[in-house]
Parts: sequence; C-alpha cells; structure tokens
Amino acid sequence: MDTISWENGRVKVIDQTKLPFQLEYFYCDSYQEVVDCIKRMVVRGAPCIGVTGAFGLALAAYKSKATKTKDLILELEKAKKLLASTRPTAKDLFGALDRLMEAAHKGGSVREIRKAMLKEAFQIKEEDKEMTKRIGKYGAELIENGYKILTHCNAGFLATSGNYGTALAPMKVAKKQGKKFFVFVDETRPRCQGAKLTAWELAREGIEHAIIVDNAAGYYMQIGEIDLVIVGADRVAANGDVANKIGTYEKAVLAKENGIPFYVAIPLSTIDWTLDSGEKIPIEEREEEEVLYLEGVNQANKIHKIRISPKGARAKNPSFDITPAKYITGIITPQGIVKPGELEKLR
Amino acid sequence: MDTISWENGRVKVIDQTKLPFQLEYFYCDSYQEVVDCIKRMVVRGAPCIGVTGAFGLALAAYKSKATKTKDLILELEKAKKLLASTRPTAKDLFGALDRLMEAAHKGGSVREIRKAMLKEAFQIKEEDKEMTKRIGKYGAELIENGYKILTHCNAGFLATSGNYGTALAPMKVAKKQGKKFFVFVDETRPRCQGAKLTAWELAREGIEHAIIVDNAAGYYMQIGEIDLVIVGADRVAANGDVANKIGTYEKAVLAKENGIPFYVAIPLSTIDWTLDSGEKIPIEEREEEEVLYLEGVNQANKIHKIRISPKGARAKNPSFDITPAKYITGIITPQGIVKPGELEKLR
Repeated sequence: MDTISWENGRVKVIDQTKLPFQLEYFYCDSYQEVVDCIKRMVVRGAPCIGVTGAFGLALAAYKSKATKTKDLILELEKAKKLLASTRPTAKDLFGALDRLMEAAHKGGSVREIRKAMLKEAFQIKEEDKEMTKRIGKYGAELIENGYKILTHCNAGFLATSGNYGTALAPMKVAKKQGKKFFVFVDETRPRCQGAKLTAWELAREGIEHAIIVDNAAGYYMQIGEIDLVIVGADRVAANGDVANKIGTYEKAVLAKENGIPFYVAIPLSTIDWTLDSGEKIPIEEREEEEVLYLEGVNQANKIHKIRISPKGARAKNPSFDITPAKYITGIITPQGIVKPGELEKLR
Repeated sequence: MDTISWENGRVKVIDQTKLPFQLEYFYCDSYQEVVDCIKRMVVRGAPCIGVTGAFGLALAAYKSKATKTKDLILELEKAKKLLASTRPTAKDLFGALDRLMEAAHKGGSVREIRKAMLKEAFQIKEEDKEMTKRIGKYGAELIENGYKILTHCNAGFLATSGNYGTALAPMKVAKKQGKKFFVFVDETRPRCQGAKLTAWELAREGIEHAIIVDNAAGYYMQIGEIDLVIVGADRVAANGDVANKIGTYEKAVLAKENGIPFYVAIPLSTIDWTLDSGEKIPIEEREEEEVLYLEGVNQANKIHKIRISPKGARAKNPSFDITPAKYITGIITPQGIVKPGELEKLR
C-alpha cells in the first residue's frame, strides 16, 4: 500500500487523520492543498512529508500557467517556500524540495522542467521505499525470539511512502523471518499516532502488540518487560543527537537508566549534516487544541472531537524533543547500523 | 468545599468522573454503593478513598438490620472486606477501615457502635483536612518566586476530603503568601486527572498553569523550564519507595537526570510501615478500556465516550508505578519535610 501517489495529475495521499477509523484518500489539486495536508497532518512522518513535498512541488509546476521558464522558476521558488514552511523540524522535506528545484534549474522548456521534476519526485519515492527494506534487513538482526520491543509514535509505512517504514521495518522483517516477539505501542499523546496508526499497522501485519499510555513505558522497563526500544526520527544532527516526536527523550533516558538498548531508525535524508548538535534543531510548537481536545469515534463509528479539559484551559504543545546522542545505542540506516558518534562514516 | 460528607444518613461525594464538565454530587444509600464509587473512581486519591471507606463502613453499620452486636460485627467484617477489595494500591483505605473496626470492637449496643464508628469517620476526616494545611505550610517553603513547578495526576483537595490537598497544598499556601509561580500540569493519561481535575482546581485558585501531555515533561525539564516537581502518593514503603499514579517513576528519573528536586507530599496514613521496600506494593491493573476509550464533552457540553484506537485493539493498563527512594529529594509530611531514608523518624 502506497501512502502517496500521483494519479491523473493529482497528488493522492492516505488521509491519516481518519485512521484507524476510516481508510480514505485525499486528492490534492494544487500545491496549496499539499501545503494544507502537511500542516493538518493528513500526511505526517518525516520521510512521508519529504516525498509529499516533492510531489507537491511537481504539482506546482504542472498547475502553473507560466509559459516561460523564468516565470515558472519564480513560481516554483514561491511554492517551495510555502511547502518548506509547513513543518519546521522534519529534515527530509527540505532535502526533497532542494532536489526538485535542482531538477528544475537544469533548464529546458516549461514542459521539460515539469517532466524532470515529476521524474525526480518518483525517484525520491522509489529511494524511500527501497530504504525501508534495507532498514528492515539490518534492524531485524537486533530482534531475538521472545523479545519485547517498545516503540513510540508511528514510524511505520504510513510515515514513509510505503513498504516497511523505518522503526517498524525491523519488526516486519523479523516477523517474516518467523521470529516471535511482542510490541508495546506507546499511544503517543497528543495526536496518538501510536494508538491510532502503529497499532493499526501492526494488526495488519499480525504482529502481537498492546497499546500502553506513554506513562507506562517506564514501568515496563523497570520491571524488566522491555528488551529493546526502536523509534524513528524527524531530524538527526551530525553528532547523532536526534529530534523525534515529543516523549522520545523521556523513553531514551529511561532506557539508559534501565540498561535497555535504544535504537533510532532513519533514512540518510533525515540527517542534517549542517548541524553539529541537536540543540540547533527548531522545535515546532503546535496548537493548544491538540492537547485540550481529542478525536475518536462514537459507537456508530462516526468521528467526533471531544474536549478533555476544563473550558478555557490553556496548554503548551511542543511536538518534538531532542534526544542527545549519549542515550542512543545505535542508528539503524539503509547502510547498516552505526553508533551515533560514527554517523560521519556515512557522509 | 468538601469532597465527602455525611448527609441525612447517606454518604455524599463529589462525582469526580463528571469533572471538570459538571460539578455533581453522588449519594450513597448503602455501603455497596460506596464500594462501587471507589471502584469506578467517582472518588479517587488515596486520602479521599480512605475517608470515603470510613464513611462507607459507618454506613454499613447504620443500614444493618442486626439487633445483636455479634451479628453487626459479622456484617461489618464482610463490608470491610468488600470495601478493602476495591483498590489494592492505596494505603489510607486499609488504615481507615481498621480504625473503624477498632471503634466497633470497643463494644456496646448496636446503636452505640454505630455512633462510635460515625464519630471515628468524622475524626479521620478532620485529621485529613488538618494534615493538608500542615503539608501546605511546610511545602510552601520550597516554592520561590518565579518558580516553575511540575505536578502529575491530581493530589489536590479532590484527592483528600477537602481543603488544600497534598501535592497542591504547598502551591495553594504559596499563592496565599503572594508568591508568583507557574504550574505545568501533566495531563496524566489514561484518566487525565491532571487535565481534568488539577487544571480545574488550579483555575479555581487563580494559580497560573498550563496542561502538557505527559510526554512533554521531560522536554521542559531538559530545557531548564522546571524548577521543582511535587506529586502525591498512594502508598509509601518504610524505606521511602513511593507508589503513585503511573508515570510518576518516569518523571522522577527525568528530574534526577536534570538535577531538579523531586518531592512527594503525603499524610502519615499513606505510609505502610509493614513494607520495607516498594517492590512489595501491589500494582493495580485496570480495564483496557481506560486506555482505548476516552471521555470528554462535545460542543453542547454533553459527556461522550469515544474510541481512540483501532477496533479490537488490546491495551495494558497498570495504574501505578514504584519510584525508588533514590530518585526522591524529600517527602513533605504534616510533621515536616524529611528525606525518604529518614521516614522512620516519623514512626
């Protein structure tokens, strides 16, 4: 199943805000709709955002009324800026947009530029799907029979353009290898991507799992019920510091305290070589409403939003945190598993 | 405002499952209804459960049709057993029930026993309210102007029989002293007692605060935004190990990692002198539904329950965890603040 595709000149994505309740597709007819999709988290997950951004910029080229290359490039620069402004933390988006602009800058007619950009977007998507297989292959070696694994947020196929995902890839490959293991799924407040997306993905794969509140992960580590932690990432600094979904830092500190290996699974496009430490990664603050309200389904399976806090209550909602490299055992990449301090080897 | 009272031969409690949406009272006409209230968490919080259990047992005496003391005692033993079976972790309940049975065993007519038990229940309630003031007085000394304080779950007046509460008592007294500070309120999944009860209490007191998801506490500690952590407890072992709401252990480990003082506020009735370590405290596992579903209000302010997970998903739901004494800076008691290792001094 592909999370994103190009269909009859439109960008088609799985609407992840409706999962696990409804499997619906959303069609973007303009790059502005792609911008909106990324902002509203119709698509989310760093690699998936990257691929979506790429197709969004290609869509901007196809929808442009420019007849001269120069005018098209001006429009594309504007579209790129808007697409890049959607989510500040995820690295893959910026890299993908740069690659599409490079394709555009190679010149040619408006028609040739459009085709070159779309080709590049497809290329990024293919690379993305391929990397999930390689992460799965390397990461599966970490999983032993009888293991209990913790994961946070969703770094599954939904967070990429398809196939295995990042953090879930080792589990999916291990399952295919016949290994038996159990996954603790952090629900991952505020948006519950663990409860809503990861639990849905694991059920589809027949991988045994249970949802736990984020508060319970430390408890299970403390009583010896967790053997391994694998998470994804939104941006990784050159020194191995990792920006990922809020709460990742908590799990990493607790894993270290309890002597449990903590791994981060990423494509190389998530690494930001320009940053020598995680402190410089911008942390997105999202709207208070994500904390104060919650969406789910009623008995009739209809999606409802409810308030779970006092009327007029205020919230703070940082979406990511930084896990310093010292808490990370290893980084699972498509080129193999490396220590966070040895990331430079892959450059 | 009293969370629990005795009104015309009935036990009257604030229905905490309706807060912060509706302030409603629930009237118990039998001790079985009190049992149900504690199980369903209509009342919750270790000291509050203790006082409720006491009035519940007094109610059993008043509702008994026994005419002979011997028969009454037999009925009371049965009621005590049922009341004690409601929640396994909170210590205060067992102590309160023992005190009421002691009052009953002092003998006399059925009428005299009833009166003695009710008097004892009122005595426990008065002691409970008094201890919240003393905890507030000692704990307020920890709070300096400009402090940012983190609390987890609800250890406010709702978790006691009234007045100041335990963990929130120092904040309420500091506020009266004119100190300016800010409170980060962990929402405290799965039941969101932070978002639903603590935020409601702090708003009533005019104490500045914001709700954060439990995942964000570590982030705010890491960036230096938290100066002090204060939580309550459900049971404390003689060595200072603390059982409290799931997630407390996570916050304590993170506080230590970031050099932030971590305090636990409790009445002496929460201490279990028979346990030399926290490992022996039983941890209640509650129903999966608490994780998979959530209650809140729709736009019309009507309470609704929604499912926030895939259909058929499984969950694990431990309600408490154990924070070893080594992570705790001090224990705020009605007799003053002591180090966890020095708890024996208070015996």
